[in-house]
This record gives sequence, structure tokens and C-alpha cells, in this order.
Amino acid sequence: MLVAVLVALCGGVGAARMLSGLVRVVPPADITAVVNVGDDMELHGLHISPDLDTVTYTLAGMDNPETGWGVSGETWTVMEELSRLGGEDWFRLGDRDLATHLFRTGQLRAGEPLSAVTAEITRRRGVAVRLLPVTDDPLRTRVTLAEPSACGPPGIEVSFQDYFVRLRHQVAVRAVRFEGAPSARPGPGVLESLEEAVTVVVCPSNPVVSIGPVLAVDGVRRVLEARRARVVAVSPIVAGAALKGPADRLMAELGTEATVVGVARLYAPWVGTLVVDEADARHAGDVEAEGLRCVVAPTVMSSPERAAALARVVIGARA
Amino acid sequence: MLVAVLVALCGGVGAARMLSGLVRVVPPADITAVVNVGDDMELHGLHISPDLDTVTYTLAGMDNPETGWGVSGETWTVMEELSRLGGEDWFRLGDRDLATHLFRTGQLRAGEPLSAVTAEITRRRGVAVRLLPVTDDPLRTRVTLAEPSACGPPGIEVSFQDYFVRLRHQVAVRAVRFEGAPSARPGPGVLESLEEAVTVVVCPSNPVVSIGPVLAVDGVRRVLEARRARVVAVSPIVAGAALKGPADRLMAELGTEATVVGVARLYAPWVGTLVVDEADARHAGDVEAEGLRCVVAPTVMSSPERAAALARVVIGARA
Repeated sequence: MLVAVLVALCGGVGAARMLSGLVRVVPPADITAVVNVGDDMELHGLHISPDLDTVTYTLAGMDNPETGWGVSGETWTVMEELSRLGGEDWFRLGDRDLATHLFRTGQLRAGEPLSAVTAEITRRRGVAVRLLPVTDDPLRTRVTLAEPSACGPPGIEVSFQDYFVRLRHQVAVRAVRFEGAPSARPGPGVLESLEEAVTVVVCPSNPVVSIGPVLAVDGVRRVLEARRARVVAVSPIVAGAALKGPADRLMAELGTEATVVGVARLYAPWVGTLVVDEADARHAGDVEAEGLRCVVAPTVMSSPERAAALARVVIGARA
Repeated sequence: MLVAVLVALCGGVGAARMLSGLVRVVPPADITAVVNVGDDMELHGLHISPDLDTVTYTLAGMDNPETGWGVSGETWTVMEELSRLGGEDWFRLGDRDLATHLFRTGQLRAGEPLSAVTAEITRRRGVAVRLLPVTDDPLRTRVTLAEPSACGPPGIEVSFQDYFVRLRHQVAVRAVRFEGAPSARPGPGVLESLEEAVTVVVCPSNPVVSIGPVLAVDGVRRVLEARRARVVAVSPIVAGAALKGPADRLMAELGTEATVVGVARLYAPWVGTLVVDEADARHAGDVEAEGLRCVVAPTVMSSPERAAALARVVIGARA
């Protein structure tokens, strides 16, 4: 029987970096990654799972470090031709990346659940970490905009990718919801792995739109609350800003200060320990005042070595 | 108001060659092509319309004369990666060709009918001929095999592309049917153009699986029967064999001799004139005994000039 020694809750780029560190200090086969699917979308009839793909490509050594998404050495023949046809080309799909979407979509249409398709893709890519979509059911992050944009007037609700890619997350947000969450069942192995894990790592992913959908799936938050002492989160906010993406904006717009203290406040009910960057050392007391242990360490994963060093801190940080 | 001066009933390669001749002798905007969609398929979640694409690529000057399908100068990055993933790669989709399928599928998913998507694709490709899918409704050619094959035991029914591509049409056939035909309505403009046409050309396409599905759509055969004198067919059978594909085998297996006389017998109720190749000149009498006028001419379109010469014969051949 597989014992999930370490379970990581994952969004995209930040989680992929954290995992690339964790696999250097823990046997990859002992790691289970529970991955957000709220960013998933249908485009051109294809099912696209950006976070699953970012994690897979990174662990397979295929990732493009320049973009933070897609495949290294990618070509763009299909997209260029699609642009010529006047097709939707705002969401860039490289040729090799497209093969993943064709494969996934074909398998899903044949009746396979996303978890089984993901297992097959990671097996083919030689990824030893077990990747679990948090749910096989439809779960879609929807964003209500607070400002006028190319998508429409204020108050309009758009898909996550409309907000994130099409609008480049430059528009203020009024609300976020996770469509399908009330009926989304946890995927096979998700709750079991969280129940068994020696340590649960919350990767430095966006608390609102990456970790939020994972928590929204029935049972996940409850298990984490029950095992809170084993849960270690890495703050995605460093010195009051997100290293990448709109986590800081979203937190502020939705009423939480965009600091490590704000992260601590959001996570306190189900996280025992928060790892914050040295740049935020002076906030450690305020973090602990929220009821979490606070560990200060370098958290910016600018190289695989720094990611591995952070992984060692995270594994040793548990209460 | 558009008057359809010339309407061509079309399958794939043979029809594309015929059209490439017709556009040299008739203003392309005066030509309407009514195209088979029985070969259409869903693969990897994408809607693929092989005959519409073959005709479009040929008229756009993008066709690959070596293969008879796909796009010239094609690359195969997506397919190679899909093979690495263990995906279904028996139906070869080139990178540029894939852009067409992504565009079509995206538009169909957004609620556009196939006819509107086809109009947009041909407009973008600079094709002046009006291409009409014979129907916007699902119509799928299904083939019952008479021999064991990689698809299963004798008696199994498979999709047209399973028969045509996967089994390379090397397996005997017991029956052909057009799934969806009873409820398939003619696409916008199909019956109107047939009713108005000065001449209807039946391209040298497979009578069973290319012209068959076109005839199976409600109203098409009735209009053609009523206007029989204006209908001119080019025999796809030359000297007892199909120039390309399984027309000869299929005709024989389904009980019609694979000769120009067999074609005449199949077409007699709704075709007034049959153009046969010089190689079949000695059968002209037998063709006329079936009740059609017979015109003998070189029908092998080995160059655009020969295709244009045949087009002149066809246009002049009407009863």
C-alpha cells in the first residue's frame, strides 16, 4: 500500500518550483501533489488543465523557465495558422503543449476520469510524483470584475482565464467563486492521502484562486483542519507582494491585507506553520499572533538549489 | 441574388481535382460545391471534416499533391508529441491542418452551424467557390465489415475512418449506412442551389461513400430526379478500377459491377449524362442502354490543364 509521506497542495508555477525542490530531498514516489483544477478550461473543444500541465512539465524537466508556462523549445505552427484563420489566439498553445491537450481530451471523451488521464500523462512523461487533480468533477473558478474591461462592464462574471490571461489580471476583482464546488467530489486518493500524510505542504501558490478551489472541494478543508499541526504553508507573499501573478491584488481586493499576516489570517484555521521569507522576519510575531507557528527562511526559489533548501526547511518546520 | 450557375456534388480528392478544373472555365463565384460530411469524425475532441478540408485546401492552393490530403509543406510536431504520449496517431493531423480543426471545433462549440463555419474558413482562405456541407446535422457513414480485422470480428460496424484510414480499406464490406440520415435536414442553400443550377456536376467521387451520403439527405435525391436532364456525372471508375480509394471494391462488394455500366446503373434514376473515360469507350452503348446519355472523354485529371479540359467537356455535355 502506498503511504503518502508528503502531500503538496498545488497551483501552478509556485507549486511546480516547490515540488522541484521537494523531489531533491524526498523520494519522488513518496510525494503526492493535489492540484487545483479551477483554472481548467475548454478552448477549441480541448480540455486544458494549466496547473496540472505546469507541474507535469516542470517535474519532467520540459518546462519553459522563461515563460513559466508551456514547454521549452516550443514551436507555434498551429497557433500561427489559427491566427491566420481568425481563430481565438489569446490563449497561447504551443505545438508540443497541444499534444497534451489532444491526448487528455481524447481520453476524457472516451470516458476516462481526469485523474486516470493525469496518471497516464505523468507515467508517459516519467514523472514519479503522484499527481492528483483535486476533483474529477467540473470545478471552475469564476471572477466578478469590479471595473470595466474588454470583457464587459463592471459586475460581469468571467472565467478565470479571461481574467488571468485575456485581461492579464490588470482589472480589479469584486468576488471569486468556484463553480461546481458544491457538488465536486474529491478525486480518488485525495482525502486518503491527506489523512495519511506525515506532512502536508501548502505550496506558495495564490491563496485565493489556486489553494481556494482545492479547499472548496468537499472534505478537503475538514481533513486539513483535523490535521492542522502537520500542515506547513509557504507564504506566496514576500515583502507585501506576490512574486508572480495577482495574489497580492486579489487578497487586497477581497478584503485581506496582502502581507504574510494576511496569509496567516486566511490559513490559520487549517495551517499549523507558516514559512515566511527573511524579508518578512519582522512580521513573525504578528503571524504567530494569528495562532500559527512562524518559520523564517529564504523562500525565493530562484534556482533548483534554493528550492531544495526551502524544501528542507519546510519538511523540518512541522510543529 | 446569387444564382447557382453550376453545382458540384463532392467527395474529397476526385471532387477537389474536378473543381480545380471547373474554376478554370467557370467564374468561381458561380460555382457551388455541395460536399459530403459522412466522413466527418470526432477525434481528440476535435471535429474533423475531411472532404470539406480537401476541397478547401485544393481550391486555396494549399493542398499536398503527394498525399492527396492535408496541407503542402506540412509539419508534424503535434503528432510526434502525441505519439510520445501514446495517443491515437493513426489519423495523421499535421500542424497547419490542426489549426483548421481547432478553429472549426471552437466555432461549433460556440453554437455556429457547420455551414457558417465553412463559409468563414473558405472566406479566410480566399476560396471564391461557395462550399456547402450537404447538412449541418450529424451524418456519419458507418461500415459493416465482412471479414475479421484489427477492429474486430466479421459483422462489426465501424466508422468510415476506421475502415478507410485505420484498416486502409483493405477489408471486405458487407453493408454501408448513413447514420443520422433520416433526420438530417439539407444545409442552408443546398436544395435551392440544386433547384436553380443550370448544370449539376457529379464529381468523380466514390458513388457509395461520397455521393451516397449526399443523396441520403432529405430532398436532395428528389430534386436531382426532377432535374435529371441537367445532371452530368463523371465516372470515378476507369477501366474497371477506381483511380484512388475503394470505390471499385465497395461497388463490387455491395452488388454493383465496378464498371462504368455499374456506375450508370447506380446513377440512372437521377443523372442524365455520364462522362466516361476513353478507356471505356467500348462500354458507351451499354451505358446508354441504362438510360443515360454517354459522353466519352479523357477523364484522368493528372494536371490542372487536363482537369480544365474535362471541365469543358462536362459543361458542354448536358443533355
